Amino acid sequence: MATPYSKGLEGVVAAETKMSFIDGEKGILEYVGIPIGQLAEHSTFEETVFLLWNSRLPKKGELADFTATIRGLYDLPEQIEAMLTRLPKDAQPMHAMRTLVSALGLIDPKPNATDVPTVRQKAVKILACVPTMLAYFHRHRQGLPLIRPDASLSIAENFLYMLNGAKPTPTMARAMDVCLILHTDHGLNNSTFSARVVISTLSDIYSAMTAAVGSLRGPLHGGANEGVMVMLNEIPTVDGAEAYILDKLARKDKIMGFGHRVYKSYDPRATHLKVLAKQLAQDTGNMDLYEKSSRIEKTMAEAVAAKGIYPNVDFYSATTYHCIGLPLDLFTPMFVIARVGGWAAHIIEQLSDNRLFRPDVDYTGPHAVNYTPIDSR
Amino acid sequence: MATPYSKGLEGVVAAETKMSFIDGEKGILEYVGIPIGQLAEHSTFEETVFLLWNSRLPKKGELADFTATIRGLYDLPEQIEAMLTRLPKDAQPMHAMRTLVSALGLIDPKPNATDVPTVRQKAVKILACVPTMLAYFHRHRQGLPLIRPDASLSIAENFLYMLNGAKPTPTMARAMDVCLILHTDHGLNNSTFSARVVISTLSDIYSAMTAAVGSLRGPLHGGANEGVMVMLNEIPTVDGAEAYILDKLARKDKIMGFGHRVYKSYDPRATHLKVLAKQLAQDTGNMDLYEKSSRIEKTMAEAVAAKGIYPNVDFYSATTYHCIGLPLDLFTPMFVIARVGGWAAHIIEQLSDNRLFRPDVDYTGPHAVNYTPIDSR
Repeated sequence: MATPYSKGLEGVVAAETKMSFIDGEKGILEYVGIPIGQLAEHSTFEETVFLLWNSRLPKKGELADFTATIRGLYDLPEQIEAMLTRLPKDAQPMHAMRTLVSALGLIDPKPNATDVPTVRQKAVKILACVPTMLAYFHRHRQGLPLIRPDASLSIAENFLYMLNGAKPTPTMARAMDVCLILHTDHGLNNSTFSARVVISTLSDIYSAMTAAVGSLRGPLHGGANEGVMVMLNEIPTVDGAEAYILDKLARKDKIMGFGHRVYKSYDPRATHLKVLAKQLAQDTGNMDLYEKSSRIEKTMAEAVAAKGIYPNVDFYSATTYHCIGLPLDLFTPMFVIARVGGWAAHIIEQLSDNRLFRPDVDYTGPHAVNYTPIDSR
Repeated sequence: MATPYSKGLEGVVAAETKMSFIDGEKGILEYVGIPIGQLAEHSTFEETVFLLWNSRLPKKGELADFTATIRGLYDLPEQIEAMLTRLPKDAQPMHAMRTLVSALGLIDPKPNATDVPTVRQKAVKILACVPTMLAYFHRHRQGLPLIRPDASLSIAENFLYMLNGAKPTPTMARAMDVCLILHTDHGLNNSTFSARVVISTLSDIYSAMTAAVGSLRGPLHGGANEGVMVMLNEIPTVDGAEAYILDKLARKDKIMGFGHRVYKSYDPRATHLKVLAKQLAQDTGNMDLYEKSSRIEKTMAEAVAAKGIYPNVDFYSATTYHCIGLPLDLFTPMFVIARVGGWAAHIIEQLSDNRLFRPDVDYTGPHAVNYTPIDSR
């Protein structure tokens, strides 16, 4: 028997996972049991991905091996680079990322392998290539020469290096790394769910990852961080923030970066991003941006915190990314770099105990209608 | 409260639809209330797509307009053709289709519009371009010159013309058209569900369609029709079919083209494909293939029909596609041509009353684990 219809599958359990745990009421996020705060403080993106893919932290030698493998794969395959440098320069980065991730399947001699060891190898390759794709595409569209990856750098450092042509400061690199850690995994968010639904046909990792990139683009998902920046830019001064927000609330407009389907208290990722955003804003002369954000948060707290509407991960991401020097339309692609780690973990988890996703649908149309010949319509 | 976990969302209603109705027990499939048999007998693919997109059959003038619009869009945009003719010739067609559908988003000046009228325009373009992409890619990989589309032909006729360089016989064209009608829509199958999940972030039609192509590639979904042909090729003679099947059943192997998550009686699409396959097999000198299929069906009926395992849509598709002259690895991409009509209908339906898909997950890992420094692991 079909269960009652829950729109958007809200409250419906669609899978089991051993990766991230979220308690939305208490504002807890753990990866394999480790509180996100501890990882943000002590771990690296590479180590966090190992944790999600192996359900435990790596030993020293394992982390060195894993890191070396990733760094050995930073370079884009020649045919992908050729395709990238021919993409229209005015293409939107997320559409470019989706197409390039898909194109990786064209040059893999065995793209359809779904045995877990092979899928893990492909996942490492995608993890290593995606930052290069994004940096290259951004250089390409500006007509700038590509900066080759530097295998002595971490994913975070190397991405900023390839993007800007200069090695990032330690503060910037650490900020980028922490952003990646905070964004790596988050339960059955829409893009992760998309990846699991697609791989459940025993399709392939390229199909599943491509679907996930497409999902993340949406303004109700990864695209939301761009919306926050647009809002910050719309507010002329720090002192104007309160009136702007109250006006929006009065018109029942959605405030970007607030509220979350799962969190009904403070999003624990926002806690860490807030600290990071403040530090970076100070370092880079962007305190007005931080203070605008802070004022918005205060106004929202007085107005709607009682309804469980708090800043989410996107809210302080905007200030952080701006301070790192990312242009607005790279905010969502930046999210891709991180979430590839989580998507791969979920694809592997789904393949390890697969059942095809094939839900029921409630048909609300007519029945037993006769085909009327065209002249009688 | 979370409802009990149903793996693969079996039995869980995930959406409402006014398009196709399936009664799996009785073997009924209707599009907007019209039995699939009536459409297979009297309608065309273009008319069927209009029906799904508008919840009614078109009047004469409307069908003429819709058809003219589609035909005016058969030509690939120049940049997409340039990308296509540079794709590796050994790339697998489904990976090529996924990448090319994604690439359409790169050249659309407003790729992210989600208002329904604009999405409908984009949908027509995708519907018109996909057959051209497939025919061109197949010519390209063989090193043959591309055959430009002929706007005086229907989608079915034009596809076979671009593929083979010769206009199809009326029987072939009609067979292709009926195949398209039978494959256009089918409830919340995995690829359609993928498209709805992705578009629910208010992403874009390219993201949703790309996800759907990736899902369809899987052997548990659209890829199954290739598996049937592989099996038919493995059986040396008509008389060898029974022993082959009984041997497979004894080893508890899955028989490709039999059984369906939804149908527990004869798949009504298979009924029509069977007639079509027989006619085509006679016309094209492939009666051994039809007779092998028929013998397999008889063996299966005696062995497992009591368990509700009957031929599904893939079973007689294989013979039909082979007789039309399609190589094995175009069977699943052929399914794409048809299903684009259904995917677009579901994308429009989802956008008309959207709620983000964001299911719950059951976390089965550890809790409150401390981050151990690397030297202490």
